[in-house]
Amino acid sequence: MEKFELTILGCGSALPSMRHFASSQILNVHDKLYMIDCGESTQVQMRCNHLKFTRLGHIFISHLHGDHCFGVIGLISTFGLLGRTTELHIYAPKAYGKILRYELDFFCPALQYNVVFHPVDTSQHTLLYEDRSIEVYSIPLRHRIDCCGFLFKEKPPLPHILRDMIDFYKIPVSQINNIKYGKDWIAENGETVPNSRLTRPAEPARSYAYCSDTIYNPAIVPMIKSVDTLYHEATFLHQDLSRASETFHSTALQAALIAKQCGAKKLIIGHFSSRYEDESMLLKEARNVFQPTYLARENLKFEI
Amino acid sequence: MEKFELTILGCGSALPSMRHFASSQILNVHDKLYMIDCGESTQVQMRCNHLKFTRLGHIFISHLHGDHCFGVIGLISTFGLLGRTTELHIYAPKAYGKILRYELDFFCPALQYNVVFHPVDTSQHTLLYEDRSIEVYSIPLRHRIDCCGFLFKEKPPLPHILRDMIDFYKIPVSQINNIKYGKDWIAENGETVPNSRLTRPAEPARSYAYCSDTIYNPAIVPMIKSVDTLYHEATFLHQDLSRASETFHSTALQAALIAKQCGAKKLIIGHFSSRYEDESMLLKEARNVFQPTYLARENLKFEI
Repeated sequence: MEKFELTILGCGSALPSMRHFASSQILNVHDKLYMIDCGESTQVQMRCNHLKFTRLGHIFISHLHGDHCFGVIGLISTFGLLGRTTELHIYAPKAYGKILRYELDFFCPALQYNVVFHPVDTSQHTLLYEDRSIEVYSIPLRHRIDCCGFLFKEKPPLPHILRDMIDFYKIPVSQINNIKYGKDWIAENGETVPNSRLTRPAEPARSYAYCSDTIYNPAIVPMIKSVDTLYHEATFLHQDLSRASETFHSTALQAALIAKQCGAKKLIIGHFSSRYEDESMLLKEARNVFQPTYLARENLKFEI
Repeated sequence: MEKFELTILGCGSALPSMRHFASSQILNVHDKLYMIDCGESTQVQMRCNHLKFTRLGHIFISHLHGDHCFGVIGLISTFGLLGRTTELHIYAPKAYGKILRYELDFFCPALQYNVVFHPVDTSQHTLLYEDRSIEVYSIPLRHRIDCCGFLFKEKPPLPHILRDMIDFYKIPVSQINNIKYGKDWIAENGETVPNSRLTRPAEPARSYAYCSDTIYNPAIVPMIKSVDTLYHEATFLHQDLSRASETFHSTALQAALIAKQCGAKKLIIGHFSSRYEDESMLLKEARNVFQPTYLARENLKFEI
């Protein structure tokens, strides 16, 4: 099965701590890398996780708080030093376009590749990007400033060819692609061989949703219905709900409620406040509501 | 003796690596912290080294390559979140003023403390800053862009009062400060007690020079004559001299030559190219010329 794998580069919140780096993740979809958020130290964390810079073509920024975007300029600059020539696409709230351009002109005047900025309207649930493997949608979130999450939907994989049957019916190589795409086969004797006899159904398409930073917001549930893996911020314990609400963040319990309501298969919680020494409390709180919950941690990988 | 201690936060060069963070150091002078350069991840490294954010009042930036300054905006932003109210002073090449202002307006519009920018003319060897403990001078360096090092000179400490003699001559507390500053004492019987009988000389004033990034440049030697500790970049081995010259960097051997010529007591080399897996080669090369050489490493402290 082709890769659909998440690597956590950082899952801390705004204040630096000894336990976590600022927010950043890499989703590996069929060996292409998609970055979600890019806090400080992201480039170092990519190196430490042996993630190839050249495989990264798209960066999705949820919002413009520093712990989600201060790593972008360093990453761009490093790619320049390494001689990158392929385009880098950045999706972020509209306001980012101007500061990005200003920083690029100042720090990277001789860049040999294009940085293409795509303004995101964070108030809309809309298709931001697609290629032959995935579609990426925005998920409007409610935070102190414009903010959205991202839903990555794998396109339905093609069915597997049954090699023995292909040989049996002496089907030429040139026809295999048609069969992958669902065509039946007309044998030499005129018999129609139905596609189902030549193929085995593919694995179901996978999906991943990233929702950070946000106050508890059940309005997102229909957008992430039945998602395979949901990453939801859980900055606070529910005992600190008032602080969570004030700062437009969620508690671990609320993250679990969202996971339960949308019927996710798995929940990963992250964006932990630096106030909690013992994050297992957050995990326990979420698991009380939604058992298949996991704590994010730097350098951890999740197969989706 | 009061503190005069260097902590290495990062000593890598431009490309991220698994071994090093980007350039940054903290000099603790009598429990006030002075930062030299501020690459990405500096705020995390300060946390990891238990260096108190509130003790930092002055940041000195050598030049505007990202690996020396991309951490500034994150640091400022974090201080804001933590409720800082005291001024933060930033010394950097003049061009930095504009981008700093732009980033501040964009990312930290509600900052509750003043960030005071001091433009540095990197072509001059001049006094940038002084307080009651130190003077900080610029050291013009030769790099691909405007760049200077920094010389930190402790002010001569006051002599130690000999408590027994003060008691013997019944000198009132109100006069102690005068005696510290060199006054003799006229005893009740009119006898002049020379200051030297009342005090013990202080330890000699200490000094630290930071020279990174720069091509080999003996013109700096008179400015750092007899410095106690010299940090000099040693990006390359001397076998890669042509690469060093092309990029306006130094080799370990050249760093050692500068240390020898200026009569430093100790040399710390850093800003290592990520190409060298084994940095002991750099150390060996420098020690052949200047024995008291040490390799910089993250989280290492040097008493000066």
